[in-house]
Amino acid sequence: MPKYRLTLAYDGTDFHGWQVQSEGSTVQGTLEAVFERCFHTPLRVIGAGRTDTGVHAAGQVAHVTLPEPMEPTALQRMLNGNLPPTIRIHNVERVEESFHAQISAKRKIYHYHLWLEGPLDPLLRHYRTHLPYSICVERLKKAAALFVGTHDFTTFANVGTKTKSAVRTLLRLDIVPQQGGIRLEFEGTGFLYKMVRNITGTLLEVASGKRPLEDIPRLLDAKDRRRAGVAAPPQGLIMVSVAYDDA
Amino acid sequence: MPKYRLTLAYDGTDFHGWQVQSEGSTVQGTLEAVFERCFHTPLRVIGAGRTDTGVHAAGQVAHVTLPEPMEPTALQRMLNGNLPPTIRIHNVERVEESFHAQISAKRKIYHYHLWLEGPLDPLLRHYRTHLPYSICVERLKKAAALFVGTHDFTTFANVGTKTKSAVRTLLRLDIVPQQGGIRLEFEGTGFLYKMVRNITGTLLEVASGKRPLEDIPRLLDAKDRRRAGVAAPPQGLIMVSVAYDDA
Repeated sequence: MPKYRLTLAYDGTDFHGWQVQSEGSTVQGTLEAVFERCFHTPLRVIGAGRTDTGVHAAGQVAHVTLPEPMEPTALQRMLNGNLPPTIRIHNVERVEESFHAQISAKRKIYHYHLWLEGPLDPLLRHYRTHLPYSICVERLKKAAALFVGTHDFTTFANVGTKTKSAVRTLLRLDIVPQQGGIRLEFEGTGFLYKMVRNITGTLLEVASGKRPLEDIPRLLDAKDRRRAGVAAPPQGLIMVSVAYDDA
Repeated sequence: MPKYRLTLAYDGTDFHGWQVQSEGSTVQGTLEAVFERCFHTPLRVIGAGRTDTGVHAAGQVAHVTLPEPMEPTALQRMLNGNLPPTIRIHNVERVEESFHAQISAKRKIYHYHLWLEGPLDPLLRHYRTHLPYSICVERLKKAAALFVGTHDFTTFANVGTKTKSAVRTLLRLDIVPQQGGIRLEFEGTGFLYKMVRNITGTLLEVASGKRPLEDIPRLLDAKDRRRAGVAAPPQGLIMVSVAYDDA
């Protein structure tokens, strides 16, 4: 059966996240509805990672198996012609049957965008988290460095994660200046459910002086979700890209 | 009476333009409602220029006269605390009674953003015009240069302009590459109603090969609105800044 890899972007503002739910419109549900309408049969679309309500994607990856082969650019055109403008397919490639958007993923990049200076640009209001307090960026950088490496991230994972092990490798966590503030660039071998937002929440508590820097190794050691900071809001988060062995 | 100059940004997507109308929410109307709620008296807010439905602003300027003096940063905070997140006041300054946001304006800058490459980024869907055909950027640059200078822009003004003379000076019209496409940067001493969108529409007809380059001087000479191209859509347009003698 012909299998395809889709690379897609979406605005998460009006979706109830990626994953199909009993109520509310989701990205996966919207994609599956388009496939069903076009191929007259229910088809499952599997994503590289779930994103929550309000979280965006520039390069989410998904796979789907079609009942009959189709030329990739024709499939892309068909999907973009039927999807709402809040979801755009950037690329379609035919892949081996062994490819799995989630299991085959080797690395992922997420960016968390913070607005720090003055009133939040209205055009960016759904794509930035506006902090109502000030932070020390140097302290934020020091705290971020403590997360890099291979750790058991249980403290920073919400329930809902189905994996057996909570050990992940965070390859880098860079603080990059940008218009109106900064972004936190997370690159890792994998991320547990809500891990980026939970780490960001704790980092902001340290950067604002609410929590000592030394808390971070202690929190990692504790392996207890109740001890970490409040998760940072969803609208600053964007899933940037997923890397596989072939790229 | 104390007079204030406001510099503000807004997302025009859900507004029926700047100017108060009998129906639909407008930027001016939303501002005036907040002033009335806070000062318990109707106050008129005058903008440097009107923007249409779907047109955005990064640096619109307006003036308002208050019944009593107020500290500028307190006024800014009060306004931002009462306005929707689609409108943000970036700056408030007390000005002379002679200041008039529209009449005192010396120069204005507008940007028109075009998306040219592949599927339109969902996060930018309200802030770019996505062309469904290809254009030649070199031809666009040549055509743009023909608009620079002092001309009678009657052909490129919609009815609704109340000014006596249609002579304006376009100081520059630069084509600047940016992510996913280009932007047209218009800087001029003043702009007639829908002038930027009308010029952009005609430029796109030239750049796509639908119209010869030589049409532009002919159109300017004709002083006849019916001869110009279709106005470019509103969502690519942003009012960037207004300059006065003091800045």
